[in-house]
Amino acid sequence: MTEPLVTTLASRTKTARIGQEFPFVIIGERINPTNRKRLAAALLALETHANNPDHPDFKDGYAYVQAQAVRQVEAGAHVLDVNVGFAGGDEPVVMPIAVKAILEVVDVPLSIDSPDARAVEAGLRVFTEITGGKGLINSTTAEPERAEKMLPIAKKYGAALIGLAHGASGIPVVVEERFEAARTIMQQCADHGIPPENILIDPLTLTVGADDQAGKVCMGTLRRVTFELGLNTTNGASNVAFGLPDRKSINLTYLPMLIAGGLTSAITNPLEPEIVSATKAADMLMGRDRSCLAWIKHNRAKAKAEAEAKAAAQLAAA
Amino acid sequence: MTEPLVTTLASRTKTARIGQEFPFVIIGERINPTNRKRLAAALLALETHANNPDHPDFKDGYAYVQAQAVRQVEAGAHVLDVNVGFAGGDEPVVMPIAVKAILEVVDVPLSIDSPDARAVEAGLRVFTEITGGKGLINSTTAEPERAEKMLPIAKKYGAALIGLAHGASGIPVVVEERFEAARTIMQQCADHGIPPENILIDPLTLTVGADDQAGKVCMGTLRRVTFELGLNTTNGASNVAFGLPDRKSINLTYLPMLIAGGLTSAITNPLEPEIVSATKAADMLMGRDRSCLAWIKHNRAKAKAEAEAKAAAQLAAA
Repeated sequence: MTEPLVTTLASRTKTARIGQEFPFVIIGERINPTNRKRLAAALLALETHANNPDHPDFKDGYAYVQAQAVRQVEAGAHVLDVNVGFAGGDEPVVMPIAVKAILEVVDVPLSIDSPDARAVEAGLRVFTEITGGKGLINSTTAEPERAEKMLPIAKKYGAALIGLAHGASGIPVVVEERFEAARTIMQQCADHGIPPENILIDPLTLTVGADDQAGKVCMGTLRRVTFELGLNTTNGASNVAFGLPDRKSINLTYLPMLIAGGLTSAITNPLEPEIVSATKAADMLMGRDRSCLAWIKHNRAKAKAEAEAKAAAQLAAA
Repeated sequence: MTEPLVTTLASRTKTARIGQEFPFVIIGERINPTNRKRLAAALLALETHANNPDHPDFKDGYAYVQAQAVRQVEAGAHVLDVNVGFAGGDEPVVMPIAVKAILEVVDVPLSIDSPDARAVEAGLRVFTEITGGKGLINSTTAEPERAEKMLPIAKKYGAALIGLAHGASGIPVVVEERFEAARTIMQQCADHGIPPENILIDPLTLTVGADDQAGKVCMGTLRRVTFELGLNTTNGASNVAFGLPDRKSINLTYLPMLIAGGLTSAITNPLEPEIVSATKAADMLMGRDRSCLAWIKHNRAKAKAEAEAKAAAQLAAA
């Protein structure tokens, strides 16, 4: 293999570098209304009162979305995923409003997450105008119709994009076919003039409770994409444990396994402190943390935050 | 690669199978007097009163060692490591007594752990006489003097053995040299008529706080031993976090990373329930747990034990 590729994302002043030589990148998953009623309501308010930003419901919704962004970045997210897809919602209207709201309060690269190319373009346009940076599109697949919509947007804005290892006939259950989907995406990107460092392949994690080979197939695909194609990767790993007991242990076990297998970023929940700690421990164990300084710093900050929370609680009780 | 090798260990009625297709094997590490004063005292009593088994101190020591064995097997250990090396202790005297004591209360294969070949032989002889099974020697290295002592014992008793990736001039800090040590051990075993399935290579985990590449070098060695030599592996992973904050998170992150990299067994602490859960979650994520039944069973047993403990506590408080 030649030099490992580095996928660079940027906001106004912050750069996120994704690659084998860099600390693992957490893409915060919490701005997504699936199963989150309060967020869905906030997004609906942004849509309903899109032309009346002084409406109190709009203001509330706007502030709620902003709070989700701030909490995640404070907790350790390097990039934020922005998904505004709620039932009946008009994503091309809501996405740019959400992006603008988020960028007023945090300075991190955003992942514009929608199957709707108009929503992706609307979000990415605002992101690029405001930051002058480099965003992430979530996502394309090996399906030609989807690639034909998403790739020109990535090219136009110089954005990186997530390619799901998803073929024209659904999600393959064997490594070979997922790997072929990844290779197809790489070729489609090349055809559109998108360089390989702008691609993050998602080897796809299905629910292990529904298919007991789900973890194995994802890891097998990940390894081939990492070592044979040399591409960087991401994964939405949180669903692996759906429906099983002790989901937390499963998630905390799975993410380090993926990192050991080459995973360079994940779309996950930074509000779970064990997840953030696991990625930092994994960086150290992968030899990416010089003199373990990042680990020590992370733990000092954690101890300080805990002490402050304790002091505040004592003060409140006094 | 041809069929993956299976390393089989056996006690009277229990067989432990170590290999890529089998659940991860936990070798309990707790019968080891290093930093355990109470255990060191128990072992000293076994030595002092070796010829007087009715002495109360001997009886106490005997029972204490037995209790360590029972707790570990109840907690999920498949094999027990037996290390009786305390300062000034006479290992060839103590080892067979400890082995006999342990086999009176648990029926699992034992790992006879000593740098002293006489102690290894004395322990393995008793183990084999009592169980008619197949034990494990911990350990040989690529050093010819050590191999010349340990390998004939392994051959004589048909035992498996752990080979530390340790060369004639100490523990190498680069993957290539550790891999060479493993290859040397494989050749030494072949020269002594020991088949490759009887070898568990330990790629060696040093303390990451002392060498920030320690995890990376171990994992790199592990991968090559697993995929190029096709041998099974073990690792004493608990020291990786020594001297660093939040050791528990580091240990809980590291073991799944090793399992993802091919590790088939570990010498670790089964009394930490999170460690046992992590190995079972990793089995499921490696596709080795059909319909996730072992995971579900493990969690049912855990829930039952917790409920019983709670009921007992309430009864005691009533």
